[in-house]
Amino acid sequence: MASLRETVPAGGSVQSLADRYRAVRDATVALCRHLAPEDYVVQSMPDVSPTKWHLAHVTWFFERFVLEPFIDGYRCYDDAFDYLFNSYYYTVGRMHARPARGLLSRPTVDEVMAYRRHVDEAMQRLLKQRATENAIAERIVLGLNHEQQHQELLLTDIKHVFSCNPLAPAVNPALAEPPRRRAATLEWRAGPTGVQRIGADPGDTFCFDNETPRHDVFVAPHEIASRLVTNGEFREFIAAGGYREPALWLSDGWSTINEHGWDRPLYWSEDLSQVFTLGGVSELHPHAPVAHISFYEADAYARWAGARLPTETEWELAAREHDIDGNFVESGYWQPLAGDGQWFGDVWEWTASPYVAWPGFKPLAGSLGEYNGKFMCNQQSVRGGSCVSARDHLRATYRSFFYPDARWQFLGFRLARDGA
Amino acid sequence: MASLRETVPAGGSVQSLADRYRAVRDATVALCRHLAPEDYVVQSMPDVSPTKWHLAHVTWFFERFVLEPFIDGYRCYDDAFDYLFNSYYYTVGRMHARPARGLLSRPTVDEVMAYRRHVDEAMQRLLKQRATENAIAERIVLGLNHEQQHQELLLTDIKHVFSCNPLAPAVNPALAEPPRRRAATLEWRAGPTGVQRIGADPGDTFCFDNETPRHDVFVAPHEIASRLVTNGEFREFIAAGGYREPALWLSDGWSTINEHGWDRPLYWSEDLSQVFTLGGVSELHPHAPVAHISFYEADAYARWAGARLPTETEWELAAREHDIDGNFVESGYWQPLAGDGQWFGDVWEWTASPYVAWPGFKPLAGSLGEYNGKFMCNQQSVRGGSCVSARDHLRATYRSFFYPDARWQFLGFRLARDGA
Amino acid sequence: MASLRETVPAGGSVQSLADRYRAVRDATVALCRHLAPEDYVVQSMPDVSPTKWHLAHVTWFFERFVLEPFIDGYRCYDDAFDYLFNSYYYTVGRMHARPARGLLSRPTVDEVMAYRRHVDEAMQRLLKQRATENAIAERIVLGLNHEQQHQELLLTDIKHVFSCNPLAPAVNPALAEPPRRRAATLEWRAGPTGVQRIGADPGDTFCFDNETPRHDVFVAPHEIASRLVTNGEFREFIAAGGYREPALWLSDGWSTINEHGWDRPLYWSEDLSQVFTLGGVSELHPHAPVAHISFYEADAYARWAGARLPTETEWELAAREHDIDGNFVESGYWQPLAGDGQWFGDVWEWTASPYVAWPGFKPLAGSLGEYNGKFMCNQQSVRGGSCVSARDHLRATYRSFFYPDARWQFLGFRLARDGA
Amino acid sequence: MASLRETVPAGGSVQSLADRYRAVRDATVALCRHLAPEDYVVQSMPDVSPTKWHLAHVTWFFERFVLEPFIDGYRCYDDAFDYLFNSYYYTVGRMHARPARGLLSRPTVDEVMAYRRHVDEAMQRLLKQRATENAIAERIVLGLNHEQQHQELLLTDIKHVFSCNPLAPAVNPALAEPPRRRAATLEWRAGPTGVQRIGADPGDTFCFDNETPRHDVFVAPHEIASRLVTNGEFREFIAAGGYREPALWLSDGWSTINEHGWDRPLYWSEDLSQVFTLGGVSELHPHAPVAHISFYEADAYARWAGARLPTETEWELAAREHDIDGNFVESGYWQPLAGDGQWFGDVWEWTASPYVAWPGFKPLAGSLGEYNGKFMCNQQSVRGGSCVSARDHLRATYRSFFYPDARWQFLGFRLARDGA
Repeated sequence: MASLRETVPAGGSVQSLADRYRAVRDATVALCRHLAPEDYVVQSMPDVSPTKWHLAHVTWFFERFVLEPFIDGYRCYDDAFDYLFNSYYYTVGRMHARPARGLLSRPTVDEVMAYRRHVDEAMQRLLKQRATENAIAERIVLGLNHEQQHQELLLTDIKHVFSCNPLAPAVNPALAEPPRRRAATLEWRAGPTGVQRIGADPGDTFCFDNETPRHDVFVAPHEIASRLVTNGEFREFIAAGGYREPALWLSDGWSTINEHGWDRPLYWSEDLSQVFTLGGVSELHPHAPVAHISFYEADAYARWAGARLPTETEWELAAREHDIDGNFVESGYWQPLAGDGQWFGDVWEWTASPYVAWPGFKPLAGSLGEYNGKFMCNQQSVRGGSCVSARDHLRATYRSFFYPDARWQFLGFRLARDGA
Repeated sequence: MASLRETVPAGGSVQSLADRYRAVRDATVALCRHLAPEDYVVQSMPDVSPTKWHLAHVTWFFERFVLEPFIDGYRCYDDAFDYLFNSYYYTVGRMHARPARGLLSRPTVDEVMAYRRHVDEAMQRLLKQRATENAIAERIVLGLNHEQQHQELLLTDIKHVFSCNPLAPAVNPALAEPPRRRAATLEWRAGPTGVQRIGADPGDTFCFDNETPRHDVFVAPHEIASRLVTNGEFREFIAAGGYREPALWLSDGWSTINEHGWDRPLYWSEDLSQVFTLGGVSELHPHAPVAHISFYEADAYARWAGARLPTETEWELAAREHDIDGNFVESGYWQPLAGDGQWFGDVWEWTASPYVAWPGFKPLAGSLGEYNGKFMCNQQSVRGGSCVSARDHLRATYRSFFYPDARWQFLGFRLARDGA
Repeated sequence: MASLRETVPAGGSVQSLADRYRAVRDATVALCRHLAPEDYVVQSMPDVSPTKWHLAHVTWFFERFVLEPFIDGYRCYDDAFDYLFNSYYYTVGRMHARPARGLLSRPTVDEVMAYRRHVDEAMQRLLKQRATENAIAERIVLGLNHEQQHQELLLTDIKHVFSCNPLAPAVNPALAEPPRRRAATLEWRAGPTGVQRIGADPGDTFCFDNETPRHDVFVAPHEIASRLVTNGEFREFIAAGGYREPALWLSDGWSTINEHGWDRPLYWSEDLSQVFTLGGVSELHPHAPVAHISFYEADAYARWAGARLPTETEWELAAREHDIDGNFVESGYWQPLAGDGQWFGDVWEWTASPYVAWPGFKPLAGSLGEYNGKFMCNQQSVRGGSCVSARDHLRATYRSFFYPDARWQFLGFRLARDGA
Repeated sequence: MASLRETVPAGGSVQSLADRYRAVRDATVALCRHLAPEDYVVQSMPDVSPTKWHLAHVTWFFERFVLEPFIDGYRCYDDAFDYLFNSYYYTVGRMHARPARGLLSRPTVDEVMAYRRHVDEAMQRLLKQRATENAIAERIVLGLNHEQQHQELLLTDIKHVFSCNPLAPAVNPALAEPPRRRAATLEWRAGPTGVQRIGADPGDTFCFDNETPRHDVFVAPHEIASRLVTNGEFREFIAAGGYREPALWLSDGWSTINEHGWDRPLYWSEDLSQVFTLGGVSELHPHAPVAHISFYEADAYARWAGARLPTETEWELAAREHDIDGNFVESGYWQPLAGDGQWFGDVWEWTASPYVAWPGFKPLAGSLGEYNGKFMCNQQSVRGGSCVSARDHLRATYRSFFYPDARWQFLGFRLARDGA
């Protein structure tokens, strides 16, 4: 499980858990710097949550899973919030329906911020007094990683909301201008074969339960691409009629693109020259990694290119040879950049692997067992993190997952192929 | 068409059109006094528009149908607003999809208020210079009546929005306490028979095109109730199993209540003791008129009671014998009150008549011909106005209309029956 | 109510009720002459019923409303049939869901025919013994008119089923070749004005409850077209962009054609040159009346033509001056023909009037009160009968009704306009 | 790939390919022995195809993939059939929409049977002349295995159709009476661990492309149950509130059962005492394996029982130690039976494994590459075959697959658990 040792941020100096708590919590609020109160309310589709829901839910997580169990007689801030801001923990109690989150104008942003302050104060008191208790520290570290996940969702969700507005407003008008460099030449790298050990062991450093246990797998000969597929490459696939050729597609993929009329990545303009970003509409950069595509589109492109997607195992074996370096939320671009390697940051990478339990997987005890395990069906594993992930939130064993038709996240891919 | 003579407000003193413009525009904003910016954004169902959409749309109406046609070289405030705030005038141009109004966090409330001020200033300049031009004055009077319609919708829409929030907030926490009086004894009044003349002639006073022309109808003997059906009476219908007896219902009504699981009026608590109002949850007053029921429910109740709903003609012939007096938005209750007569105010009254053209009906010329005429199918006429209508907006010939399954307006009914 | 006097068939000689019963029942079966057992099963949309359902339902009607009430100790043929073949009589009991009628391969056609024979034998015994009892005779006449309605539905339903089959089979490959004559010149005929009496009185001849009572109406000056609108005229409307001009359409009509992608009448080929008929695909005859259009399309055409649809009253006043003569099911064409007058037969004519109760309307007592009255909402009255109606089933006061988006019946229209 | 050596039927004597062709084709028709023509038409849900569609589609498969490519100048029987009876081979051409298969009353059963005879004659001529050509023989063997798959679907589909009929007819009233024996005691058997080789190599015997190539996997310690979970055991899960406890369910499973209101296996009566079978309604046998449950229900039961489902690998390693013996379509019961082992027959067994490509998987060349590969997303692998599978169609490497919410097949499961 989580350890205090992981709280060594990028800079290198050791951070107390209380400081880290403050830093992560502040970072969440800072993401919203340019939003008006109206912006916090909208839910543009069931997968998207309103900004203020994210701000409140992560707070509820600390209240429900830290303050209530560990502080005798803790009285929750507002009983209604237990209903409104529970996401999907059925064993905790009933909850407000997910697709109806956008119906709630109240509590207002100010009220949510007051809720955050209230919980933060209680948390800081707890941290001051009992941060050395392992059970508490572990739970707090989980809560901070949880909040980091929601930082990313907050940005991808509000991006989707703004994309539905004909005014195409910028979530953040002060983003850094992306360097106009070229993508590196794609190289094929042979991966390790035979019996290999992947996954994580709790104890060394923080990880989610779905990364455990470490276990052996048998790996066949294969090669994996040295960088991500680019916008320019994906545009060739489109130009070659990729979206109109059924032989390239999974059956469910073909149904999906035809049902929705998809003929290009989400957020691309009809003429394939512009793209909607967190900074507003900008020119499409052909050397930047393609993003906002579904698993189906990644898979069809790979088939067209005579390749395939890497498995989770292949990806993890390759990625763990690289430092966690790249284009993260802290970089201030909030969009994928042309580059090389790109194992971490830029875009989450679709893998060929359905998201399932590692052999011997045990979910967390109690309600937190609902965190990851119950989603192990119908979703694909994605790896590596994105340009809006926090850098210290990622690692090679990290497994995220989305339905194969999801596009609103920063989702891209790299190619792999069977070995000689 | 509209005339300046109608601008005699309740108090009696003559008001200039410029003053009336200011009064109506201010009244709209005053309705929102207790709202937070977040409240202006939400659309809880396709029929509902966000508060700030109403505030902008009525402004667009003046810009599009007064400022642009009558001021040479008028430049519209923002081209995007022409798209965003056009409701349904296809002949003006394409428009933002109605069910997607709640996706727009921008323009913000402040930006909408700036738009209102901009248009108001241009309008006041026009009024100062050219209020005596009939074509302009008539168009402005239409715009003011249009805005009054949206004042009512603004309140019924935000009521629906707040009703979807488990916190059940009050739209207006400062409403007047309703007097706890009893409903008058119901009496049956015989109406006039034979050839009768109903409808309105443009020229006397303002009216909408759908009230014209005055025309003869043949009226059979009938009686009409002296007051509205009450909550208490409707509760008896429920207790008698009215919602479970198919023989009482129109075929489409029976499908509708079963599909939606309706077993009581909208906004009633499950135990039939409380009701959600614009002031929050309050006790159900058995003597107040029943409200927020569909045409189907009114029709089923009437059949159960051995009666029927009045036709539009029967209603108009009876109502025009009464002063426009009652419980309106200015009364400050914003909910129906127990009483007698109740021909105007309290609740719109479902009639037995589908909303169709009066014989010889001609819609307004040009785009404004889309105002009323194109809705003359599948809807039922309702009459009399409600507790959130402006008093000087109503008259006996006024025809409003809703789909038979609509419930989110203040919709109630009175009974009628065939004559001896 | 129904009388034996009405049983004077086309030929003129008086027919006994027993003979008439036999004739109507045989006619139903004769319509299916060219069908294979497989054809009797399919339901192509919820509005359509399988052929064998029609054959069984009309039989159930006699069993349930004649044999059971009038024969002591009558045991119904099969309890399950009471559930399967009840259409919408909730007061009789629960029923098989309408959209699921096509799921039933059993009872087979042979079994349904055996059911028909069983009921026919019981009916003939009853007719032999008690045909002079008025209550029984009236109920039987109602059942025969009911069966005639289903004869028409059987044909329009199987036409729809066959139209969904890429093989485009003919329901009847032995239909008469339509004469290729021209439509008469359209003339405008002024109708009667002032107080007029319309509707039917039970007692003279058979009529449905919805035609009663006779009552006075006030009629404004108007003119009505001497013949139906033709395919050729409707093709001009299409060529003029009628389906793309929102100003021509009711709001619900515009939504409907856009939602469904309608740009021509049902059963027309994309190039507007061919039409699917009960005899298979044939050339579109420009002089024949347009058919298989919704109310919305009729209404839009009329607006485009500077006219309107006639009201029910205007139609009835004009039609009753004409003999019941024309192109009916007995003519053997089973498609509309070019002609003049066309008040009866060819196509049902959409009117401007929503289907509502005549003043003083009383539905039949008991379960048969569900026959007509509960549909008096959301539908439009249609008049005159079609090329697949039985001639002796029609009269000037006859009111049928369909939802405004219905197209699978033989539905057409004539124009009217306000008087000088 | 397929070999003639596999054509050794149960009895043991070697069968020529021509004889085997005849036997399989006759077996298909024999399954329909008790059906009326009406029964062949109905499609009760999109997953279900009408009986006559199956009869025609398998014939089209031979025509399209054997006769057309291998016989010079072969003229297809009917061009329309190429459109109507193509299932999902987009690279062959466009096709009739799957959910609309039940709209086709034509071609009739007789016409389909004539089509079968026509193709059978051409096939027999080809077999007589060129059965020794490997390419042809392999393709024919594929077509026969394809037809065997549809034999099973034909039965499970018509079972669903009949289950929707309140008359609950028997597909086959002459089925054998199941022996009322007890299930064997459940024992846990440790499986092999470490690097193991699974999958099939074409060349030895017929297999589908999705079973290839043989490949190594790493297997962790585990145990697998010696028999299937029974109706009685599943009834205990229901009695313990299994369907109401969210902690037992995958997230998508919980949504699914709540959306559909599932609280018991498909075909079980509300009181859990009876079950609809291919022989009609019969008493539920507590010792027979539970069937007609979704993956979600199997998974929830396993969690409740403190176990899990086996992976495909675990299942295959265990099953290949057993003969292909059990309760198949030839047994004449057409329902699962109480027993022991049950590795083949009775019910397809849900595994924990999503259906994905084996490492190095290559789909068949050309259009037949659409047979299996494009379904490798969103489905779960099932293993072992059922009581309506043909015995000589099954083997330990055989992989079938269904969406996790599928219930209309004979789908059951056995338990597994992590090893000590």
